[in-house]
Amino acid sequence: MADPWQECMDYAVGLARKAGEIIRGALKEEISIMTKSSPVDLVTETDQKVENFIISLIKEKYPSHSFIGEESVAAGERSILTDNPTWIIDPIDGTTNFVHRFPFVAVSIGFVVNKKMEFGIVYSCIEDKMYTARKGKGAFCNGQKLQVSGQEDITKSLLVTELGSNRDPETIKIILSNMERLLSIPIHGIRAVGTAAVNMCLVATGGADAYYEMGIHCWDMAGAGIIITEAGGVLLDVTGGPFDLMSRRIIAASSRAIGERIAKALQVIPLRRDDAAN
Amino acid sequence: MADPWQECMDYAVGLARKAGEIIRGALKEEISIMTKSSPVDLVTETDQKVENFIISLIKEKYPSHSFIGEESVAAGERSILTDNPTWIIDPIDGTTNFVHRFPFVAVSIGFVVNKKMEFGIVYSCIEDKMYTARKGKGAFCNGQKLQVSGQEDITKSLLVTELGSNRDPETIKIILSNMERLLSIPIHGIRAVGTAAVNMCLVATGGADAYYEMGIHCWDMAGAGIIITEAGGVLLDVTGGPFDLMSRRIIAASSRAIGERIAKALQVIPLRRDDAAN
Repeated sequence: MADPWQECMDYAVGLARKAGEIIRGALKEEISIMTKSSPVDLVTETDQKVENFIISLIKEKYPSHSFIGEESVAAGERSILTDNPTWIIDPIDGTTNFVHRFPFVAVSIGFVVNKKMEFGIVYSCIEDKMYTARKGKGAFCNGQKLQVSGQEDITKSLLVTELGSNRDPETIKIILSNMERLLSIPIHGIRAVGTAAVNMCLVATGGADAYYEMGIHCWDMAGAGIIITEAGGVLLDVTGGPFDLMSRRIIAASSRAIGERIAKALQVIPLRRDDAAN
Repeated sequence: MADPWQECMDYAVGLARKAGEIIRGALKEEISIMTKSSPVDLVTETDQKVENFIISLIKEKYPSHSFIGEESVAAGERSILTDNPTWIIDPIDGTTNFVHRFPFVAVSIGFVVNKKMEFGIVYSCIEDKMYTARKGKGAFCNGQKLQVSGQEDITKSLLVTELGSNRDPETIKIILSNMERLLSIPIHGIRAVGTAAVNMCLVATGGADAYYEMGIHCWDMAGAGIIITEAGGVLLDVTGGPFDLMSRRIIAASSRAIGERIAKALQVIPLRRDDAAN
């Protein structure tokens, strides 16, 4: 039997590449910046333009499918995950990077059916790296198969995370004290390139051993989540329990051992779920 | 009159490129890791091999010149800066990245005469980006002229820094509380790619607005320092005073205003200078 979702994936890879071209073009022009939840939560016309571009072309081809897109939600749409085939889209993961032309900016497209991830695409468009994964078929970057490091010893690990865009003093304190606890284990180090999706893909390549973050959204994780698992990694909740795409928190690790050790170190930040009632 | 140091610079660019080839080759083999000052201060055979390669070839051509190299100093040589033409070399800036194959690893070569930087070379060899600057002649990446952002408003800035390899609890606390103070201003964000030289080059491209760090060494700054100033940026001490290559601390900023505002926020970490008597 033919893979029912492979056609969707092939179509989405082409769209992600075209979206990346739009973004690269926009980097050559002046960028006008607006803010969302806080003075450092940025958005641009290009975010909205790229999301409309992707969603309108998918809707034309798959009118019965559902959509959760970062900018549509910002404009007031709900983000409820049903069993219907659902596209979860972040047109520009790393908008702050985009605004500064810091060279890590990704188009992220995840596809979920019956609440399970079927495929994921992360196009890091300035680097021209196309990361893809189809359930059961492995993860790839520009055609090269990906494999996590498999590292199990936290004291030999390199982690990726972000300081985030929340400037509430209590939240900043928890984020930094979590770093302090991890550094003191000790670990080799912490890196931050400014996009959740690219950070996760770096774990998938084996370049880093785990990524964790709280406060991100389903559209930051839906594309890269399956890239992690298809590269041999694991997804966990920050408590060490099962990963929940709508929970706004994640540990993406090269092994369960590393993931659980990180969970043990983390103090949890209270967050409103992506699918919370208004 | 011909530029007396241009020939040295052209020679060094060729050496940096060859050193990068050695490093890329080593990434395909197994990497055996040793530690230096702490369990997370890593070094490999490739660091030593690349430093020997660069220094021996320069010595052959310029036998009267002086050298300060990261691995030679680790092996017991003094790092004293005299007025003699001096090559300051970090064979692998980002050794922890190299060990993990995290894709930012640079060869850094600085050239200093009468204690003034004459040219600098940073070859980010996995990305294949060759950054160069000659005093008075501008800074370039793969032939393209570089210009800092010029941003003067700290609240619109993106910074780069590192958590470092010191695991002393008091040092970690100062590093994190410095981040807390900066984030609370607020600023747009903080990134960390794991090498001082590449972080500084990202400021030179305009991708970030400033880099600061304490605890690094002259070989981490000597290549990229002049790339910052030739791209229109400024180098300051973390107190806001004049930059001192042997002080182990730096602010490299796109404008004096941003640099001084960062200096105001930073608590200083006590450090032994690179040229301290034994």
